[in-house]
Amino acid sequence: MHLDPAQLAALAAILRSGSFERAAHDLGVTQSAVSQRLKALETRVGALLVHRGQPCTGTATGRRLAAHADRIGLLEADLARDVAALAPAPRTRLRIAVNADSLATWFPDALAGMPEHLFELVIDDQDVSHDWLRRGEAVGAVTASDQPVAGCNVVTLGALRYIPTASPEFMARHFPQGVTADAIASAPMLQFNVKDRLQHNWIERVFGRAISPPSHLIASPEGFVRAARLGLGWGLNPETLVTQEIAAGQLVPLLPGAHFDTPLYWQSGRLLAEALAPLTRAIRKAARDRLRI
Amino acid sequence: MHLDPAQLAALAAILRSGSFERAAHDLGVTQSAVSQRLKALETRVGALLVHRGQPCTGTATGRRLAAHADRIGLLEADLARDVAALAPAPRTRLRIAVNADSLATWFPDALAGMPEHLFELVIDDQDVSHDWLRRGEAVGAVTASDQPVAGCNVVTLGALRYIPTASPEFMARHFPQGVTADAIASAPMLQFNVKDRLQHNWIERVFGRAISPPSHLIASPEGFVRAARLGLGWGLNPETLVTQEIAAGQLVPLLPGAHFDTPLYWQSGRLLAEALAPLTRAIRKAARDRLRI
Repeated sequence: MHLDPAQLAALAAILRSGSFERAAHDLGVTQSAVSQRLKALETRVGALLVHRGQPCTGTATGRRLAAHADRIGLLEADLARDVAALAPAPRTRLRIAVNADSLATWFPDALAGMPEHLFELVIDDQDVSHDWLRRGEAVGAVTASDQPVAGCNVVTLGALRYIPTASPEFMARHFPQGVTADAIASAPMLQFNVKDRLQHNWIERVFGRAISPPSHLIASPEGFVRAARLGLGWGLNPETLVTQEIAAGQLVPLLPGAHFDTPLYWQSGRLLAEALAPLTRAIRKAARDRLRI
Repeated sequence: MHLDPAQLAALAAILRSGSFERAAHDLGVTQSAVSQRLKALETRVGALLVHRGQPCTGTATGRRLAAHADRIGLLEADLARDVAALAPAPRTRLRIAVNADSLATWFPDALAGMPEHLFELVIDDQDVSHDWLRRGEAVGAVTASDQPVAGCNVVTLGALRYIPTASPEFMARHFPQGVTADAIASAPMLQFNVKDRLQHNWIERVFGRAISPPSHLIASPEGFVRAARLGLGWGLNPETLVTQEIAAGQLVPLLPGAHFDTPLYWQSGRLLAEALAPLTRAIRKAARDRLRI
C-alpha cells in the first residue's frame, strides 16, 4: 500500500490552507495540478477525501490521510538530520491536541524552542483529547488519563492547579451564610461546556454529593476569568490566571485553601518516539517549570 | 403544530446537562420520565433527537428543537414580567455565538448586568458566527457582516482593533532588513485556524498582494499572545490584550502605527427583539465603552 507523495502533499495542503487555490500557491503548482492529484488519490482510496466548500474541510478518511502525510514529513525531516545527502523536507505542521487551560497557561512555553516545526494546536477537553490520538489525527495529546492510547507512550507531566473563585460582590450576594450545599445549588456557576465536569467534581469532593447548579457555558479560559471578575458566576480557574486578581482582591477563593489539582499526561505515537524526542523533552521541561508535581 | 412543553423541557435538559440522569435531577423527575418524554417527542417529530453517548449530544433536529424550547422560555420570562399573575419561568440559557477575541476582551462586560439570564457562549470565527443564527441555534451573534440573516435585526457595534506584533528577538531574527514582502513570506506567522484570514488580509492591505507564509495554528486568543511573546511567530492581537506587553517592550508592533480594525455587528432574531431588548442595550453599551467607533 504505497501512496503517491505528491498526491498526499496536495491533500495536506488543501486541508491546511482550506482552498485549492491557496494549496496550489503553497505548493508552487497550478490549481489544476492540485485538483488532479486529489482526484487521483480519491480514486486510489475509493473515498471522498475533501468536502469542497468555503473553507474546504477533510472527510474522516481525508483527515486521516493528511495526518499520515504529516507523519511521513516528520520522519523525513528526522531522516534528513542524520543523512546529510538528503535535503531537509519542507516543514510539516504537527497537530497536537491540548486542553484550553494548558494552552492558556504553560503549554506554549514548550514550543518556543522548536523553530524547526510548525504546530497546529487543536483545543479539546483534557478528558477527550486522547480521542484525537485514537483517530490518528494528532501526533500527540495532553490528556487527563494515564491509560495509554493503543500504540502511544505516556509521560507524566504534573498537575494543573485550579482555584474556585468568585468576585467579592458575588460572594456577598450568593454566599452570605458561607459556601453551603444549599447556596451552591442555586448560585450561578461557570462551566466551560457541557463536557466540562470540573466544577461538578469539586462540588462532589467538598460536599460529598452531586449537585447541578444553574450554569453559564463559556468556552474560553480568559472569558471564564472575566466572567468571574464581573460577577456572572463562580468557577474553577487555573491558579496562574488568577494570581494577580486574587492578590488585588478582585477575586476571592470560595473556601480558604481550596484548590483542585488535575494531573496531566503527554501521550504520543510510539512509531514517532525518536522524531518527537526533542518535543517531548521540551514539553517535560515546561511542565516541570509550570505545573505542580 | 403544538409541541408538549414537558417533552421539550426534557430534550433541552438532556442537551444542556449531557446526560439523562442529570436532566432528571435538574427537572426533579425520574430518569424514566425523562426517557419517556424524549421518546414521545422523537415519535411526534419522526426523527432521532439525541445521540445517546458520553455526553449525550443533539442531532441537528434535536438542537433546533432545544433552541425552540429555549426561545419559548425567553418569551415566557418576558411575559411573566408583564403579567403579574404568572410565576416567572425557570431561567433558560441563551445561546449566543461570539468570536473568540470578543469573548476574550469586551463581550463578558455586556452580560454582567443581566442576572436574570444564563448564557451559553459558543465560539466561532466572526465571519461564520451568523451561521449559528441561520441554523436557528443561537438567539444572537456577534458577526463581521452587516448583511442581516433572514429574520434578524442588525446593530452596528464598532470595531475591534488589532495590532500586528512579535517579540523583539523575533523581529531581529526574521526582519533584520525591516518587514519586507520577502521577509513576510518566510517568517512563521500565527493563525487562529484555517478559517482565520485576518493576518492574510492585513498582508494584502500592506503589500498589495496575497502571500501565504508558513503558519502555526493556535486556536486561543491568550495562546496567541503567549506564542507571540515566546517568539513562535508574529500575529494580529487585539489591542487590549497586548497593551501591557507593548508598553513593557515584550512585544513590538511590526510596523509603526500599524493596526487593523474589524467592524463588528450584533444580530438577533426579530421575533425576540422585545424580549432581548435589555441584552441588546447592554451589548451596545459594552461595545461603546470598549470598541473603536
